[in-house]
Amino acid sequence: MAEEEFNRISILHGGGGLYMQKLLKEHIIPRFRSRRFKEIPLDLLADSAVIGDIVFTTDSYTVKPIFFPGGDIGRLSVSGTVNDLSVVGARPLGISCALIIEEGFELAKLGRILDSMERAAEEADVEIVTGDTKVVERGKLDQIIINTAGIGRRSEKLDENLRRAASDGRSLKSRWLDPRNIRPGDKIIISGTIGDHAVAIMAAREELGLEAPNLKSDAAPLNKLISEALEIGGVVACKDPTRGGLAALLNEWSETTGIGIIIREASLPIREEVKAACEILGIEALELANEGKAVLAVSGKYAKDVLEAVRSHPLGRDAEIIGEFTREYNGVVMETEIGGLRYVPMPIGDPVPRIC
Amino acid sequence: MAEEEFNRISILHGGGGLYMQKLLKEHIIPRFRSRRFKEIPLDLLADSAVIGDIVFTTDSYTVKPIFFPGGDIGRLSVSGTVNDLSVVGARPLGISCALIIEEGFELAKLGRILDSMERAAEEADVEIVTGDTKVVERGKLDQIIINTAGIGRRSEKLDENLRRAASDGRSLKSRWLDPRNIRPGDKIIISGTIGDHAVAIMAAREELGLEAPNLKSDAAPLNKLISEALEIGGVVACKDPTRGGLAALLNEWSETTGIGIIIREASLPIREEVKAACEILGIEALELANEGKAVLAVSGKYAKDVLEAVRSHPLGRDAEIIGEFTREYNGVVMETEIGGLRYVPMPIGDPVPRIC
Repeated sequence: MAEEEFNRISILHGGGGLYMQKLLKEHIIPRFRSRRFKEIPLDLLADSAVIGDIVFTTDSYTVKPIFFPGGDIGRLSVSGTVNDLSVVGARPLGISCALIIEEGFELAKLGRILDSMERAAEEADVEIVTGDTKVVERGKLDQIIINTAGIGRRSEKLDENLRRAASDGRSLKSRWLDPRNIRPGDKIIISGTIGDHAVAIMAAREELGLEAPNLKSDAAPLNKLISEALEIGGVVACKDPTRGGLAALLNEWSETTGIGIIIREASLPIREEVKAACEILGIEALELANEGKAVLAVSGKYAKDVLEAVRSHPLGRDAEIIGEFTREYNGVVMETEIGGLRYVPMPIGDPVPRIC
Repeated sequence: MAEEEFNRISILHGGGGLYMQKLLKEHIIPRFRSRRFKEIPLDLLADSAVIGDIVFTTDSYTVKPIFFPGGDIGRLSVSGTVNDLSVVGARPLGISCALIIEEGFELAKLGRILDSMERAAEEADVEIVTGDTKVVERGKLDQIIINTAGIGRRSEKLDENLRRAASDGRSLKSRWLDPRNIRPGDKIIISGTIGDHAVAIMAAREELGLEAPNLKSDAAPLNKLISEALEIGGVVACKDPTRGGLAALLNEWSETTGIGIIIREASLPIREEVKAACEILGIEALELANEGKAVLAVSGKYAKDVLEAVRSHPLGRDAEIIGEFTREYNGVVMETEIGGLRYVPMPIGDPVPRIC
């Protein structure tokens, strides 16, 4: 990167990896002062903020192309915001719809996108309650950007879920699903196959010459699936592996907790098409964005029952326990299929820009 | 407008006037179903949604230029969202900061914008509690767009304020500041001069050859000013005249209530520079966007006291009672300075695109 480029925003800054963390932690978060609402501080990089028992989140979507197998920017935007609320332990209630549209955009396409937002909202049993619409001159925006913010209320199931987690003798640092609650021995569950969204988007872009005709984006609201898991109890933290993928998520958790993570490659759910795409393009499946997957950290005692509960939900059929927190390693380590060990580093940026 | 253009988004659709209302009412709002949260329905085009005692809003900012006399996109974004919460009768609590940045944007400029957001947040005594950052390839976005969503809680002063409004015998249709509460005889107060923001932006763009060296945007958080008014009581509705200006706001109120409005030109607070700019450019000051003004509908009995309370706030020194609701007219009518009457129509779009 050229000298003067250091002073400018690069595509890597939006990738969910190291560059983005650096941007957030050095340039953005230190500028905002927490005065009253400190329960989940900004620098935890949680998906949502907490104000009393209200949970609040925001996400903008710039995905390209805007329609893709398995969804579109509308479905993505509602699902993503529902998921950001859900992974903290909230029951999502209301979603906002802020449209920023390029002059000349077809009304018919806008209609398809909005219908798709409404369908996703109905799936999640939330409502689109407020919005804003801006129009930008032709050439000053690439078609459409959607921002969805969301509010939710603390899930009724959270207290009992955490009480069970604490029954193994731990004291909980947070009354939310929060990586600060994690301790060694906690199991890591992923709700399904990794990389589907990113590879579906790459294939839809065509420019890469990638074909994956049967692959669809996994974009979906996960609130009901997560609610099933909370019903069992023992879930201490949860996050959706979007930009930066599973690799970024696990590295964030390991850094926040100061506890190592071991995952087993053989137990990672991954579709053949995604594996093939990663081999062809020389990219790492662990770094690929997902838009309908949750990763749960669960007290060992409850892990198998939580796994069964997640699997009983249609979006969780391929769920697996992929590893656990351990003092044996620092950072994130993967036992490969042939039995070796390797570090899973924090991604630098996302291998694919404009993924969500 | 050419035939096929009817099927596409035009700049006018973002202008806060007739075109925008048509877009919202025909293409956007009907696609979203209200199931539980019906207290302030979407088609009321209120600034915020209400979920129990929580108020929720969103707004995106695409202003050009991003730095202008009196503020920048950061100050604008926090002020606008604080105001959208306040005008419904909420005490703002948390603001989100969703940044969408063009690749190559200078970090130093980003820093200035974020510092400005934080200063506006401190002024309003709210906190920036959550955020999102996306980066878009060079040429696919014009520098930066900011979306700020916000949540607030029902103001403690609202019940007593509305109780006083009801003391003149009216029954209130809404327990919020809501145009459905208005009845003939209610006075209309504006908190200060109109058009400052729009003319400051136009002058900053230079391309129009407009000079207004002493004029500044009025962008400011109004929550404390509105709170002063609620302390007096009798305020039944409130809104900030942003895109579409005072003309759009009053026409919306008249349409929603089915009650006519008379305003007096002589009582309209307006700066000489704004008047001059309107004459030079042949535009209507009533249609110009404001970003730090509130319009209040107040029970006649309390109007003078509310005016005094608003004037006692530094942002409300130029406040005036500009007219009232009346059955004598349909729509919005203005008594001109020379004593004639003329209709104030709903604007078609904003005379200036990318104003906020």
